[in-house]
Amino acid sequence: MAKPLILVTNDDGIDKYGILKLSEWAASFGDVVVVAPDRPRSGNGQAVTVGSPVYCNKTDHHHAASEEYSCSGTPTDCVKLAKHKLLNRMPDLCLSGINHGSNASVNNLYSGTVSAALEAFTAGIPSIAFSHLEYKNIPKVQNCLEQIISNVLEYHSPQKPCILNVNFPRDKVKGFKVCRHAKGFWEEEAIERKMPGNVAKSYYWICGSFRNLEPEARDTDIHFLSENYTTVSPIAIDRTDYEGIADMQKTWA
Amino acid sequence: MAKPLILVTNDDGIDKYGILKLSEWAASFGDVVVVAPDRPRSGNGQAVTVGSPVYCNKTDHHHAASEEYSCSGTPTDCVKLAKHKLLNRMPDLCLSGINHGSNASVNNLYSGTVSAALEAFTAGIPSIAFSHLEYKNIPKVQNCLEQIISNVLEYHSPQKPCILNVNFPRDKVKGFKVCRHAKGFWEEEAIERKMPGNVAKSYYWICGSFRNLEPEARDTDIHFLSENYTTVSPIAIDRTDYEGIADMQKTWA
Repeated sequence: MAKPLILVTNDDGIDKYGILKLSEWAASFGDVVVVAPDRPRSGNGQAVTVGSPVYCNKTDHHHAASEEYSCSGTPTDCVKLAKHKLLNRMPDLCLSGINHGSNASVNNLYSGTVSAALEAFTAGIPSIAFSHLEYKNIPKVQNCLEQIISNVLEYHSPQKPCILNVNFPRDKVKGFKVCRHAKGFWEEEAIERKMPGNVAKSYYWICGSFRNLEPEARDTDIHFLSENYTTVSPIAIDRTDYEGIADMQKTWA
Repeated sequence: MAKPLILVTNDDGIDKYGILKLSEWAASFGDVVVVAPDRPRSGNGQAVTVGSPVYCNKTDHHHAASEEYSCSGTPTDCVKLAKHKLLNRMPDLCLSGINHGSNASVNNLYSGTVSAALEAFTAGIPSIAFSHLEYKNIPKVQNCLEQIISNVLEYHSPQKPCILNVNFPRDKVKGFKVCRHAKGFWEEEAIERKMPGNVAKSYYWICGSFRNLEPEARDTDIHFLSENYTTVSPIAIDRTDYEGIADMQKTWA
C-alpha cells in the first residue's frame, strides 16, 4: 500500500517552529508536502483571496517534507492550491498548526489554523488542526499528537472524514479528551491610539480578552485544558441552527 | 421607548449599492449607524486584523444614516470597532449586506457579510446577513426584507438573539422559507497563469464552481432559492459536531 500523502499547513507562517515540528512528526506517518503562508496569517478565519492573484514558491525550510511551497495567500488559499494544483493526488490527511496559542471555544471561528483544516475537510479529507496554549512546551506533546494522528488514520478516511480542533494544555499532558467547545466570546476588543503630530487622528488595535460563558461546565474544551488534558473537538461543517429553525417555525408563523 | 439603534455593515465596501439600499430601508425601523469596509472585502470570512492597526474615518455616503464610518479593516473588525468604540451603546440589531451574490450553503463559511453579522451575534445582538443572487433586482426585495427585519425586532432581543443568513432569489420573490443550508463545496478552485517575460513564473487565481451535494433535497436553501423563495437560515455559533463526539467516544475508545 502507498504511504499516506499528508498535507501540512498553518497560519503562523511556513518558517515557524510549530509547523517545523508538525511536519517532522508527520513524516513518520507518510509522505509530507508543506504548503503554508509566506507570512503570519493569524486570525484570517476562512478568508479566501478574491480579486487578486496568489503567488507560490518552492522553498526548503522543512527537511522532513518531500516538497514544500510558500504561498502569498491565506491558509484557506494554501489548501485550495494544494488540492487543485500542487499535489498530484488528493491527500489522505491534512494537518494544520501547531498554532501559537489557543483555538479553543469560539476562537475556532477566527482561526486560520482551524479554517485551513476545515477547507480540506470540505473535500472529504480527514483533517486535524493543532494549537498549543504554551508554545515553548511543544516538544512535550509529541506522543499525544502522534496518538491522535494514528487514531485519525485508523478510524477515518475520505469515506468517513473528520475535522478535529485539537488544543494542547500549558503543562504536561495527562491524556486527551474528546469534548465540545465551550460557549464564550471576546470582549473589549478595540484599543484606541492617536497618531503623533497635529492631526491626532485615531487608529485602533483590535484585541481584547476571552470570556468563558460557562465557567462551571465540566465537559468543555476550556475546562479540560485547565485540567491539563489535550482537547479533541470535532467540528460540524453545517452551521445551520436546527433548534433555531424549529423555534422560528413556531414563533414566526 | 427609544428608537432601536441599528448597526449596518457589509463586505463589498461602504459605497456599494447593496448597503446604500439596506441603510435606507433600515432607517424606517430606527436610528442607523453605518460602519463598513473602505474597500471590497468579499471572501474575508471571520478574519480579524492582527498585528497591524485599523483606521476609521467619518464619511457621508449614506444619507439615511445618522453617522457612518469607513474602516480599513475586515467586516468583523468593523463590528468589533462599532460595538466597543464608535457606538455609545450596544445596538439593538445588526444588518449586514446586501451582498452581491449568494451566501447560501457552504458559502456562509467564507462570507464576510455573514461573518460580520455572526460577530455581532457573539455579543448577543440579533443580527441578519442579507445576500442577493441577482444584484440588479435588489429593488424588488424591499417588502420581503422589511418583513424579516420586522419579525426579528418582534420575536428576538438580546435575551433571545439570532443570526440569520438570508438569501434573495434571482427573480420575483414568492415569499420566504425558514430552512437549513444545503450540503456542498467548491471544486476546481485554482486557475494557473504565467507571468509575462523570460521568468514565466506561475501565479494562481482562487476560483471555481459550487457543487451541491444534495440536489434532490427539497428542504434546503439551494432548493428554495431555485423556486424563487427568499431563504432564512439561522446559524449556530457552536460548531461542535456532537454526532462526531458520540461516534469517536465509541470508535476511539
